[in-house]
Amino acid sequence: MDDTAETRQIAVAYVESLEQRDWSRLVTLLAEDVVYEMPQTRERIRGKSAFLQFNTDYPGDWHLRIRHVVADDRLAALWLDVRVDADRQDACVWVEVGEQGLINRITDYWPEPYDPPPGREHLVERW
Amino acid sequence: MDDTAETRQIAVAYVESLEQRDWSRLVTLLAEDVVYEMPQTRERIRGKSAFLQFNTDYPGDWHLRIRHVVADDRLAALWLDVRVDADRQDACVWVEVGEQGLINRITDYWPEPYDPPPGREHLVERW
Repeated sequence: MDDTAETRQIAVAYVESLEQRDWSRLVTLLAEDVVYEMPQTRERIRGKSAFLQFNTDYPGDWHLRIRHVVADDRLAALWLDVRVDADRQDACVWVEVGEQGLINRITDYWPEPYDPPPGREHLVERW
Repeated sequence: MDDTAETRQIAVAYVESLEQRDWSRLVTLLAEDVVYEMPQTRERIRGKSAFLQFNTDYPGDWHLRIRHVVADDRLAALWLDVRVDADRQDACVWVEVGEQGLINRITDYWPEPYDPPPGREHLVERW
């Protein structure tokens, strides 16, 4: 298995283990000094232990489904369909895999809905 | 060149042609019936002509820089550093390339900053 295939497999396993609350599997995927970042809130979590607690504590009945996964060498991008209670949202997640086959960096984007700016109504349709 | 390499090259050329306002190059990359979607505002633009106009009309002094590009078969994910006038933002862009080597779908996410929810201060650092 080449680096791209391994990265893709690890990125998929990361989402599966979260969705299944399979914490013992999740920790096998993570480097000890994994860095998790949420650029929208400028929050960073360092280390496997804190990141695990962040996930086990995360409120709500949340579910993750992979819409697309794209891997290339040691970086993967995930396009997720996220449901938290009655809300649905897309997420974009970037996963970097280190030399040891462990995730060493995760960057999470949760793009929120907003109203479109005026001036382009003649070019767009809404759904 | 395999599909992954072609898709990567096209995704990079897409961003370069936007950044350079090279509209004649941009149109050579797009399928006639390209679909451009912004899920956050639930806006969709259909067709090369409307999409070109959307870009030529887009207000502000905007600049795009590729932080990462990940391609896999006919799908690419772009992680962009976007500057519009004095504002900086990240963007996540998904580009699908059709059989003819032309972009037939672009999905654009512009994740906006927001305040973190309370309750996880003990796990995170802010930047």
